[in-house]
Amino acid sequence: MKTTLSGHKIGFVGLGKMGAPMARHLHEAGAEVVVWNRSKVAAETAVTRGMRRAATLPELALEIGDGVICVNLTTTEVVEQVVFGPGGLSDGWPTGGRTLVIDFGTTGVPETKRFAERVAWVDAPVSGGQVGAEAATLSIMAGGTAENFARARPILETVGKRVTHLGASGAGQVTKLANQLIVAQTIDAVAQALRLAELSGVDPALVRQALMGGFAESRILDLHGDRMVRRDFKAGGRAVLQLKDVRLICALAESVGLESATLKNCRAQWETFVHEKGGGELDHSGLFKIYE
Amino acid sequence: MKTTLSGHKIGFVGLGKMGAPMARHLHEAGAEVVVWNRSKVAAETAVTRGMRRAATLPELALEIGDGVICVNLTTTEVVEQVVFGPGGLSDGWPTGGRTLVIDFGTTGVPETKRFAERVAWVDAPVSGGQVGAEAATLSIMAGGTAENFARARPILETVGKRVTHLGASGAGQVTKLANQLIVAQTIDAVAQALRLAELSGVDPALVRQALMGGFAESRILDLHGDRMVRRDFKAGGRAVLQLKDVRLICALAESVGLESATLKNCRAQWETFVHEKGGGELDHSGLFKIYE
Repeated sequence: MKTTLSGHKIGFVGLGKMGAPMARHLHEAGAEVVVWNRSKVAAETAVTRGMRRAATLPELALEIGDGVICVNLTTTEVVEQVVFGPGGLSDGWPTGGRTLVIDFGTTGVPETKRFAERVAWVDAPVSGGQVGAEAATLSIMAGGTAENFARARPILETVGKRVTHLGASGAGQVTKLANQLIVAQTIDAVAQALRLAELSGVDPALVRQALMGGFAESRILDLHGDRMVRRDFKAGGRAVLQLKDVRLICALAESVGLESATLKNCRAQWETFVHEKGGGELDHSGLFKIYE
Repeated sequence: MKTTLSGHKIGFVGLGKMGAPMARHLHEAGAEVVVWNRSKVAAETAVTRGMRRAATLPELALEIGDGVICVNLTTTEVVEQVVFGPGGLSDGWPTGGRTLVIDFGTTGVPETKRFAERVAWVDAPVSGGQVGAEAATLSIMAGGTAENFARARPILETVGKRVTHLGASGAGQVTKLANQLIVAQTIDAVAQALRLAELSGVDPALVRQALMGGFAESRILDLHGDRMVRRDFKAGGRAVLQLKDVRLICALAESVGLESATLKNCRAQWETFVHEKGGGELDHSGLFKIYE
């Protein structure tokens, strides 16, 4: 283990494909981990691994007190509801307390800034997928005050390999959206390139290998290009979540005045794939299918 | 040296940023290299390094006889003119000879197939840029018959590090266009991502570093992203050549029936940058400027 967390009591809300292994790494680093999850099965699995389970969100917050609560949820709306909604964590916070929330999800930038005005908050979205979560090799893009980042750091370094503090609240989310913009557009580029080769009578598997040595080399060509060659679109990273991120990117771009025809086209591609081609539950590399 | 070429007599036409170091590597591997270049300065430099210079293209062809002639030129039209045009190489070929032409440039696919019907031909476009040419670490994507590829191989392995035989004539060019499609679109994606971060108040240099660990990682983010951060758009790979390649990609896509809104948008981006923003002579990473 990279860091020992013994003596720490940490709350963890959201035990999905990413959250479950992250909570487990905190537990294995010696922390006392108290979990809550909407579906009971994942929470019960955590209990069999030695973590404790809170019956409700306010109870979890009460138990953690001035400590740290990690949330790993799918949308901005769910984050707001779980943290500040009725029956949410904030119902159990000590008055005048200094609970720190670490948000590992990809959450809207203006909302993140608002949340950070109500409670100590570190936005810490991740890249690296389920594989990175299992192996504790995630890249983590963090935003928040220096003090809050310092509190979050031992936890971030336990679940990730490369932890970068990008600036004030929301800076982590901005960086994650920059990441997702590149991912969304590179998947599209790799899909076109491999399909163009195939339609031209050249083996796409061979093309992918040849390209890995040159300027077109990328993690997407390596991993998602391989999925395209094998036509293996079992999720992985669901296309519907990629579309959610593309919408957040467009909202941020509009709010800061970034005009981009490419970004508009990118959104249209993902909307078409998810809503017209029924690709939402496939892996995002499945965007390849719009060229078949 | 990886391969010794002593005893080989090799023609080399086109001593630009890429061709000059490639010809030098062949010379240093022991080959007798006879060069021709449109502007005399580059040819004279080659002579001072120990290569020989032919006065005309037919004389070069006559001297090489049944050997190998490498061409490294900027456009399909120039390749056709230099090889088959009046006063070109074919005027000096021995009747019934078996001269092999190796074309290192990015040349149209249907034209390559036509050229290969007239003379032994290996299309061998490269990726890796001037840096790769200097260091003899280019990726080379080759097309042609097994026999012609076998003849070309010692030369390809002298100037490149990763040599892949993709299939029949034109397969190398198809693969290079797949490469350029990814490069053209990834540069655009990285430009948007870094500019979006900057406009959102986050340091793009820090963003680039943070992203290098995750799914957005690519050679383009690494090298061209760094140029964008430093606003250093001195060419390198000129944008006007990137546009030339994007046009070839569109022509190939149309000929094989690949419909792509993204590709149409990509072409519009590069046309705008080169023809409306005056970016043609900048490095292709200069596309960043359309977001400023």
